[in-house]
Amino acid sequence: MDLKDYIESIPGFPKEGIVFRDVTPILQNANSMRYCVDQFNDFVKSIGADVVIGPEARGFLFGVPVALENHVGFVPVRKPGKLPRETVNETYDLEYGQDELCVHADAILPGQKVVIIDDLLATGGTVEAIIKMVERMQASVVGVAFVIELDDLKGREKFKDIPVCALTHFKGE
Amino acid sequence: MDLKDYIESIPGFPKEGIVFRDVTPILQNANSMRYCVDQFNDFVKSIGADVVIGPEARGFLFGVPVALENHVGFVPVRKPGKLPRETVNETYDLEYGQDELCVHADAILPGQKVVIIDDLLATGGTVEAIIKMVERMQASVVGVAFVIELDDLKGREKFKDIPVCALTHFKGE
Repeated sequence: MDLKDYIESIPGFPKEGIVFRDVTPILQNANSMRYCVDQFNDFVKSIGADVVIGPEARGFLFGVPVALENHVGFVPVRKPGKLPRETVNETYDLEYGQDELCVHADAILPGQKVVIIDDLLATGGTVEAIIKMVERMQASVVGVAFVIELDDLKGREKFKDIPVCALTHFKGE
Repeated sequence: MDLKDYIESIPGFPKEGIVFRDVTPILQNANSMRYCVDQFNDFVKSIGADVVIGPEARGFLFGVPVALENHVGFVPVRKPGKLPRETVNETYDLEYGQDELCVHADAILPGQKVVIIDDLLATGGTVEAIIKMVERMQASVVGVAFVIELDDLKGREKFKDIPVCALTHFKGE
């Protein structure tokens, strides 16, 4: 299967100079979604992860079925104000300003082997922040997996020692 | 399984007078997540739905695995500014002011039988808005399914002719 047949590219969204890679057609088709989850399952088994973590909101779409099929838990990473109990937080730099991510403080146990799943790897800022949060909870990230990697942005250089799974690649605008 | 063992109740979140029902512990446990998805699968089969729709962000958590296991597509409903292509939009009333939901205009085909899946049924405003969008796309909502129903808020009275599946119930504060 060529996954690019199920990815729409929208120039100028959300702003001038960006080509948005839209994965919603993958989700609308049971075969392309099955393909992605199967690929992620192989990766999760190969690295021996025992919990899946995914950032709001597109990370939820791919992370949950993979957790379920590997019989492990799924932990959501959210923006501030969404998780109701005690959280571990991490700020990270955007092009202009900063953003913040949160995870429930009891969601990851010490010693757990965590895989991060998201739709797209760009500069890697989100992943880097999640890795810091996981390490503060005395657990470790043993792999990161994406539907799409934007190669030119070199996001994977931010976490050189961690195995990366990317199902398809674009140069990255 | 008593699903309430996996739901945390947080008084005063996000504001005074609300008891927030937190489903993240369900997701963190593979058995409780398996239980929810199995129950939803039975419902989806009984109503013969051929597409699952779920609102951002907690609707993604439960809708995607159910779509995958029933070999049908999943369509995300999002807040404005998130979906990059042409959308169908619907505004709905909140306690103070209004909110707006969007779905890609090509995501639902005329004649399709749609099931809405979300974590919680409160007043039913979100569901009512999604039903209107689906009907404008010449399709029909054949069922709505929730992990939690807040019974006292009588949300299901907003869509009396549509089958409702709720896995557990609270009075609703």
